[in-house]
Amino acid sequence: MSTERTTLHRHPERGSHDWAEIESVLDEGLFCHVGFVDDGPVVIPSNYGRMGKRLILHGSPASRMMKTLRSGRDVSIAVTLLDGLVLDASAFDHSMNYRSVVIFGRGTEVTDPAEKRAALDAIVEHIVPGRLPHLRPMTDKEINATMVVSIPIDEASIKTRTGPPTSGERWPVWTGVIPTRLTAGVLRPLVCDAEAPDHVAAIVERLSAT
Amino acid sequence: MSTERTTLHRHPERGSHDWAEIESVLDEGLFCHVGFVDDGPVVIPSNYGRMGKRLILHGSPASRMMKTLRSGRDVSIAVTLLDGLVLDASAFDHSMNYRSVVIFGRGTEVTDPAEKRAALDAIVEHIVPGRLPHLRPMTDKEINATMVVSIPIDEASIKTRTGPPTSGERWPVWTGVIPTRLTAGVLRPLVCDAEAPDHVAAIVERLSAT
Repeated sequence: MSTERTTLHRHPERGSHDWAEIESVLDEGLFCHVGFVDDGPVVIPSNYGRMGKRLILHGSPASRMMKTLRSGRDVSIAVTLLDGLVLDASAFDHSMNYRSVVIFGRGTEVTDPAEKRAALDAIVEHIVPGRLPHLRPMTDKEINATMVVSIPIDEASIKTRTGPPTSGERWPVWTGVIPTRLTAGVLRPLVCDAEAPDHVAAIVERLSAT
Repeated sequence: MSTERTTLHRHPERGSHDWAEIESVLDEGLFCHVGFVDDGPVVIPSNYGRMGKRLILHGSPASRMMKTLRSGRDVSIAVTLLDGLVLDASAFDHSMNYRSVVIFGRGTEVTDPAEKRAALDAIVEHIVPGRLPHLRPMTDKEINATMVVSIPIDEASIKTRTGPPTSGERWPVWTGVIPTRLTAGVLRPLVCDAEAPDHVAAIVERLSAT
């Protein structure tokens, strides 16, 4: 949905409200930045999950972020993927390739035990798909110790830049794109030589360098 | 400097106000998230530079973010590096390894032409060190078309998690860390086969997968 807050004023040609594009960035991202107001603006990184058109955040009930989210005050959440450094002939024309989703909304605490469990499952499933069935099930005590908040993804936009430098200016300097992406390194199993199961291999594959 | 806003309440053992650590994350990061209040909280990704203990942001004078920054209103800026996914035996004990700097401050517009040029240079130098001398110098017109704001890095903290999963719980599932980092892919020169100069090779080396 497009609103005054999600109207893209700068480089509107880079913006969209297309749900498929927004969903794709939210699913690829591994963490977000949550912005809220608590005696001034505060930005804090957080992991997250997604249940359809709801973003799920969790944390300690004592945390400032969770208290603010639960209160239903306005929040803004950004998920940004850096896709490359764009090197042009002048400093002015340098840019970055990226995909960035910004959401505006208000949180609601998830208190129903079954829904809360499903929401926490969604966070694990988001970060390491396929791992959930292999885990020791969460206890009621663990679930009670965690606060879960759901934010509707109704008011969201995505901004994207792709492609090469565009100034067309000739100058004797290398121009082009240095592609960037988050990649996985060599696994560090807690138990030496433990073989990685499919769900771990899958995320390593997804985060492979090439 | 530690203030009420930068006091770390959650996992205080993960927090620090050590300048060397903060500086290291700011120098490694390639973009930040800027939080400000404009009829509610707004979070927007941005590139940045650093001049000593000042963070430099730039953009179009028409952008909402730059207008807010120039007005001297409170802002919060986060730079987050994801270092790994921490996979434990239960969903509850899953975590992420990361380093995240959060800055609170107020912007001041940089208007002095020489200082403004130096600040814009600092952004290029931050992103691709060593490239600046090879670029076509910025024109006065380009400098006039860009707004530059400086934010003192006086009120900042860093939060870090490192190391393996810690629950010690036994369960028949792979546990350990999947290290993650931003890496460079295959260069895409604008001119085919253009050889990458040292400053481009250096950033590729810095962002190498291993």
